[in-house]
Amino acid sequence: MNFKLVFKLNGYILLFDAIAMLLPGLVALCYQERAGFAFLPVILLCLAVGIPLICLRPKNKELYAREGLATVAIAWVIMSIIGALPFFFSREIPNFVDCIFETASGFTTTGATILRDVEKLSHCMLFWRSFTHWIGGMGVLMFVMAIAPLAGGNNMQLMRAESPGPKVEKILPKAGMTAKALYGIYIGLTVLQIVFLLIGRMPLFDAVTTAFGTAGTGGFGIRNTSIGGYGEYIQGVVTVFMLLFSVNFTIYFLLIAGKFKSIWKNEELRMFAVVVITSILFITLNNFKLFGGFFEALHHSAFTVASIISTSGFSTVDFNLWPAFSKTILVLLMFIGACAGSTGGGIKVSRILILLKSLSREFMTLIHPRSVKTINVSGKKVDDDTVKHINAFMMCYVLIFAASVILISLDGYSFETNVTAVAATLNNVGPGLDVVGPAGNFADFSILSKIVFIINMICGRLELFPVIILFLPQTWKKN
Amino acid sequence: MNFKLVFKLNGYILLFDAIAMLLPGLVALCYQERAGFAFLPVILLCLAVGIPLICLRPKNKELYAREGLATVAIAWVIMSIIGALPFFFSREIPNFVDCIFETASGFTTTGATILRDVEKLSHCMLFWRSFTHWIGGMGVLMFVMAIAPLAGGNNMQLMRAESPGPKVEKILPKAGMTAKALYGIYIGLTVLQIVFLLIGRMPLFDAVTTAFGTAGTGGFGIRNTSIGGYGEYIQGVVTVFMLLFSVNFTIYFLLIAGKFKSIWKNEELRMFAVVVITSILFITLNNFKLFGGFFEALHHSAFTVASIISTSGFSTVDFNLWPAFSKTILVLLMFIGACAGSTGGGIKVSRILILLKSLSREFMTLIHPRSVKTINVSGKKVDDDTVKHINAFMMCYVLIFAASVILISLDGYSFETNVTAVAATLNNVGPGLDVVGPAGNFADFSILSKIVFIINMICGRLELFPVIILFLPQTWKKN
Repeated sequence: MNFKLVFKLNGYILLFDAIAMLLPGLVALCYQERAGFAFLPVILLCLAVGIPLICLRPKNKELYAREGLATVAIAWVIMSIIGALPFFFSREIPNFVDCIFETASGFTTTGATILRDVEKLSHCMLFWRSFTHWIGGMGVLMFVMAIAPLAGGNNMQLMRAESPGPKVEKILPKAGMTAKALYGIYIGLTVLQIVFLLIGRMPLFDAVTTAFGTAGTGGFGIRNTSIGGYGEYIQGVVTVFMLLFSVNFTIYFLLIAGKFKSIWKNEELRMFAVVVITSILFITLNNFKLFGGFFEALHHSAFTVASIISTSGFSTVDFNLWPAFSKTILVLLMFIGACAGSTGGGIKVSRILILLKSLSREFMTLIHPRSVKTINVSGKKVDDDTVKHINAFMMCYVLIFAASVILISLDGYSFETNVTAVAATLNNVGPGLDVVGPAGNFADFSILSKIVFIINMICGRLELFPVIILFLPQTWKKN
Repeated sequence: MNFKLVFKLNGYILLFDAIAMLLPGLVALCYQERAGFAFLPVILLCLAVGIPLICLRPKNKELYAREGLATVAIAWVIMSIIGALPFFFSREIPNFVDCIFETASGFTTTGATILRDVEKLSHCMLFWRSFTHWIGGMGVLMFVMAIAPLAGGNNMQLMRAESPGPKVEKILPKAGMTAKALYGIYIGLTVLQIVFLLIGRMPLFDAVTTAFGTAGTGGFGIRNTSIGGYGEYIQGVVTVFMLLFSVNFTIYFLLIAGKFKSIWKNEELRMFAVVVITSILFITLNNFKLFGGFFEALHHSAFTVASIISTSGFSTVDFNLWPAFSKTILVLLMFIGACAGSTGGGIKVSRILILLKSLSREFMTLIHPRSVKTINVSGKKVDDDTVKHINAFMMCYVLIFAASVILISLDGYSFETNVTAVAATLNNVGPGLDVVGPAGNFADFSILSKIVFIINMICGRLELFPVIILFLPQTWKKN
């Protein structure tokens, strides 16, 4: 591996961290909170290590797949550790593994928490916590790419490793331009949501942190009742924006360009819509006896479905108390997840779409052995390598899932808790069922389980391969 | 589809059913049970319909993949319905769906039961119930093939559809000879087990039915405590034979031929051994506090691991009461299942082995893009079509699994019950956890759920594709 290049790129990440932490520092100033001092040593540390690193001059500036994947994985581990330090220094989260859990959960936009009482945190820490969602949603290396040319011309490897979906394509000729455009849309939509929330008379601090949590499809709330304590209008706004952020951002490019026909023809979007609508319908029919009426049930079902399939994890009610049928659908939605190229997690609708199409091709060849069919999604041919890659992804996914559930089960919780806790972290959802339901948290798990969850969250956000590659001995051989 | 050919082949199945039912009839005579009369009308029905069917003369005798798969699936559905009639006519199982459930569970070697008190059944019905395991284990069409040349020369399609594993190969030059040899080994091992059980002073009736249940890796017991009421020696014999029947039968060919080196090199066998031994070890370490000592824990852990991974489903103790870690390992073993070419169910060790190897190849190409690697298992090259086929299998598996869990959840049982009940039926294991644990049964599920389980069991035994093909409209087009 080209270590110098990997170190240099991680230097940029440290500088980015230092700059990002100025914002919660500002919040601390506004609210005159002593906890804000906790950011100071971390910022200095980032600068002290980051500046020498970016001065490194690697001989070979070419970024290969291996280096790209490893860089991104290392960056996310470093971010989770560095980002955890303010929580630890301020003593608002006493245990360091808990601090890393909370930060990894933030950056990976999972939203799972070890906090029993989130309202105890100071404003600056609450802000930092939600801000990690916003940063992690679109990706840090994406951001750095958007403002500075990184590694020669070959930034696509980084983009591929950090962006969700089976196949990442540049929307604009250069990776840097694509990153800029994506961040533009991201910021625009976030501001739009803040405006809508403010119209509903949500306090500014609440509006900004909630928008961060929605934009990154993260789900950290700043109240113990998540979004349950706000009015129906605000819950409605969050529902809509959770769905907007789980759509492939290319759709917004097409929207701006006025290419409505291409949007209509987008098969991933259609499948996503069908899944969302049918899930809301079935769940409403199943649980409306629990509510005052059909429309109240519809409202909460829509919120919950949007929250789970977007892998945000906000809640208005404790869906852990819903009937088994509703809960089973929700667990299934955790696995499906959002669209590729969104900020959401899970397996992704497009992967499932491609797998379904390759399955139907397999049956066609079984019935008509001489038929040769290609797989097309939204009019574009999907090559065999992509299908192979998705199959490898699914296999890794199952292996990591199974291994995690076994390790977690050592804590002795129920089968439901273990399976949904792993599903909620690996798919970056946040809450699961039973002990880790919307009214629960991850506080009581053992250190081992918490480390497993941290790895799950980073694996899920980076879509497995970058993390797995860190564990292969071949990766660490010098070029 | 070549309907005449499919009908003709199913005619043989009916005749086979008629002959098979003579045995429980004989048992009824021995024990002078009136319930035995229930077999008479069924035998007559089979003859009345079967004989005209085998007289059909299809123009084209060639058996294509489509016809092969459909024939096998239809045959298994018919067998489950016909085999259910004696239970119904004798009124020993009053509900007809329950009768089909019990019979499908028998033929598919699942061993899940709707009976709350199995000891109430008459001897002839208990015999028939266990005998269905023995018939289903090796396959009915296999049996017919072994004694009569069926459809021209191309019987491989039937063999492929009915035999478990990703790739079915003839061990001997002709399908008929292979079927004969396999049945020879099957009968030999069954007799051997009966002898060993008789040495342990098990009553003859118990020994024969237990051997039937073990040979087919079915798991129907004739007592409410399954194998729990017998001594340690008998439990040990069952443990060993459950493992022997979950090994690829090719191994016994090699053993007879003295090719010990090939056996040692068999990667599936090695992986199976590693999984079994480590599982027993971990479970023993986890649950030995529940038992009188380490060796007692080892004894029951070994029995349970052998029972679950072989997908038999016998029990000596209620493993539903074991700690979460042990239970999670058992659930995982349900999915892994036995070796290909055995009588066991589940995904099969060789499928998992091939998937793991294709995954490692994917990572190699990620790190060294120019490396081209082939997948070899036990020294034989696995072609890309087989890998594709396995991936399609896995996708179907996940889809059927998810759909089943959702439908089952309408009954309102726990998540643990729903997931393990589907796992236990789709993998042909029998017992799951919670409501469907070793001390429980499937009696209280709704009709809809029971039908879902029946479909799961047949899907699992025939490895999905034959059943799925029945639901495709293209299958039913006339040639």
